[in-house]
Amino acid sequence: MKRVYVKDVREYLEKAILLKGWIHKIYDVGQISFIQLRDKTGILQLVVEKNLREGLRLEMAIEVEGCVEENPKAAGGLEIKTTRITVVGQGDYEVLPFAINNGVIDAHLETQLNERTISLRSPKVRAPFKVQEEIVEAFRTFLKSQHFSEIHTPKIIASGTEGGSEMFTVNYFDRRAFLAQSPQFYKQMMVGAGFERVFEIGHAYRAELHNTWRHLNEYVSLDVEIGFIDDEGDLMDLEEAFLRSLFPHLKETCGYELQLLGIELPEIKEIPRIPLEEAQRVLLEGYQKKSPQGNLDAEGEGIFSRYIKEKFDSDFVFLTKYPASKRPVYTMPDDGLPGMTKSFDLIYKGLEITTGGQRIHQYTRLRENMLAFDLNPEDFDFYLNTFKYGMPPHGGFAIGLERITMKILDLDNIRQATLLPRDLKRITP
Amino acid sequence: MKRVYVKDVREYLEKAILLKGWIHKIYDVGQISFIQLRDKTGILQLVVEKNLREGLRLEMAIEVEGCVEENPKAAGGLEIKTTRITVVGQGDYEVLPFAINNGVIDAHLETQLNERTISLRSPKVRAPFKVQEEIVEAFRTFLKSQHFSEIHTPKIIASGTEGGSEMFTVNYFDRRAFLAQSPQFYKQMMVGAGFERVFEIGHAYRAELHNTWRHLNEYVSLDVEIGFIDDEGDLMDLEEAFLRSLFPHLKETCGYELQLLGIELPEIKEIPRIPLEEAQRVLLEGYQKKSPQGNLDAEGEGIFSRYIKEKFDSDFVFLTKYPASKRPVYTMPDDGLPGMTKSFDLIYKGLEITTGGQRIHQYTRLRENMLAFDLNPEDFDFYLNTFKYGMPPHGGFAIGLERITMKILDLDNIRQATLLPRDLKRITP
Repeated sequence: MKRVYVKDVREYLEKAILLKGWIHKIYDVGQISFIQLRDKTGILQLVVEKNLREGLRLEMAIEVEGCVEENPKAAGGLEIKTTRITVVGQGDYEVLPFAINNGVIDAHLETQLNERTISLRSPKVRAPFKVQEEIVEAFRTFLKSQHFSEIHTPKIIASGTEGGSEMFTVNYFDRRAFLAQSPQFYKQMMVGAGFERVFEIGHAYRAELHNTWRHLNEYVSLDVEIGFIDDEGDLMDLEEAFLRSLFPHLKETCGYELQLLGIELPEIKEIPRIPLEEAQRVLLEGYQKKSPQGNLDAEGEGIFSRYIKEKFDSDFVFLTKYPASKRPVYTMPDDGLPGMTKSFDLIYKGLEITTGGQRIHQYTRLRENMLAFDLNPEDFDFYLNTFKYGMPPHGGFAIGLERITMKILDLDNIRQATLLPRDLKRITP
Repeated sequence: MKRVYVKDVREYLEKAILLKGWIHKIYDVGQISFIQLRDKTGILQLVVEKNLREGLRLEMAIEVEGCVEENPKAAGGLEIKTTRITVVGQGDYEVLPFAINNGVIDAHLETQLNERTISLRSPKVRAPFKVQEEIVEAFRTFLKSQHFSEIHTPKIIASGTEGGSEMFTVNYFDRRAFLAQSPQFYKQMMVGAGFERVFEIGHAYRAELHNTWRHLNEYVSLDVEIGFIDDEGDLMDLEEAFLRSLFPHLKETCGYELQLLGIELPEIKEIPRIPLEEAQRVLLEGYQKKSPQGNLDAEGEGIFSRYIKEKFDSDFVFLTKYPASKRPVYTMPDDGLPGMTKSFDLIYKGLEITTGGQRIHQYTRLRENMLAFDLNPEDFDFYLNTFKYGMPPHGGFAIGLERITMKILDLDNIRQATLLPRDLKRITP
């Protein structure tokens, strides 16, 4: 008998089917028990007679045969008249770490993360990862439709992209190596290698000493790099077009999960592009909020996002024209605005989810900028030499996957958008 | 003017178009020059008058305007009557590291890897990565059609899946951590967490002291894990079905690259499944080739593959029923064959590209097996505890992405299937 997923059961009305999953809930009512079966796709009521009920415990993995019947009182309007239950995965526990069948888990997030296999069984806890998977799918599909190639670049590297601070070190045979903070140099090199337009979905590592709701030490970065651009406007156009394609895709593929999480996705209109200096001025004049030099702080990002929401009805805002002193060595200066660069951040509901910009593509200019940044060009030969051989104007950006997931779903903590988070204190499970 | 890719130029016959790419070759013939323009998708001839030719060098990045005309003598039957050339990426080199416009690069592989941005510009060198991208695409599409979820699990881990040998160590703040050899434990846990069927496309790390044509220290692993299986036969069925879907997909999407590399893909018929002991007997009796206990060596894999090719006309063969002593602690014993396990390898043209098998899903049995393997169950609590809460029968496998790419394309060295390889000696570029 072919296994049927819960979400498809309605197609088998009055028929005998095979189901597989876990025992989510048990109600005993005299000679009859109502058992909620939970599988990957949903929850369904089994009607079980006493002889089949014996020995069953919550969270056992079971296979079930029975007939699909309508019952307006059951959730989803369907139930299974059960004829056979086989326990295929035993319950060897004394007590479950916490209940997962009451909607919201009554346990601290850290406890839930310690028992990740169990907490993820809660449909509400697992739902963000279906949405996350579809964010990745939409990203990939959109970029492939725009002639991008998917690449895989090394995470073990010999030198940092920005001088080696905040990097984890790896003992690589008899040498010291690092874990890559981003595929920055490599994605630029692959543009120059003839792929022209590349993206990578891969881990990035930051040895930052932050332990906050928005920081991870290992995260998934959605990286993009494009050759033959005119300026950073092309990059913002591309990211905006991706985001506009993303929300309809999520509505189409994640209806169940979005409903479960109580999320309604708005239509994305034009995303405002505001120079950083103007944002700082608005904050100071309108909100008496001072900003650090050449940036906004977390509080400023929050206030400015609310200002943009009110004024433009947009959850997103591009901040543009960051000063050169605050951007990496490879950032293209804006020749029309001395001291400024052709770079941007994307702020979404008060949180930075993207940094991007045009890069320097001229060998001499890049080399000189390295010297101006007190870097030794010889340390970066493997990268710098690329620029001798016809490097087209190019740029790119990166989206933090967990951050965008968290913000789309209004989650409180980035760890809720991470299957197995890595932070200052946690490397297990 | 919208940019047109070389592969699409025929659609614009007699029209003015914009092209972008690199100068692949220059022939000067009196007042006229023939310039080959190379972009991501192919090579096209530009007809250029003397005034536009000046200052151009090989490998400069250019933008070109001109009119598409038929010329039966030009490769592809088309050429561009050029009206404008703009150099957007300068050539700042004295001499190219090697010629990339003569079909095959006349330089040692190591030299090509040192100058990776340049060697990849050769269409033949870059072609394997288009095929590799489509292998990944086919893998993902096939599994999604079979109700799998794509996951991302940590590569920084606290303890090894098989005891910690051959792992790179990471300095994680004040602790020692490791780089994951595989997502083995985590993919099993995610099956148990309710995803039921998962796959991951991610890096895996092996601190092996091999420096051979088939070893990498960082590679991309295509990992699969499935819950609610009957036995390891389900896993081989799934991998076989994937491979059968793969070759037609590659023929459809990589026609240009396969032709460039001179590869014809056969139809995959039924893949033979041969117990390891029988393979060893065939090698000994037919070829006087002794095998190590509980395995084949590299030479044995080669001979046995040729035997299978002759006897079954198959490039693939599953070796089954490996002894428990040669498989990891989590491998499900085969109760019908004492000492043996429900595990398999897939050998493709003489090279192992997959290891897989059913896993132990019973808490007590797994715990006892850990003790039998001289492992301390408490070191694996984060994993072992999962098995208390209804873990269904499950199993999985992993395919080495660079290995399958190499073998499909008959490449000599796995580094030719790796953009930026990491080996015993190499961590740059």
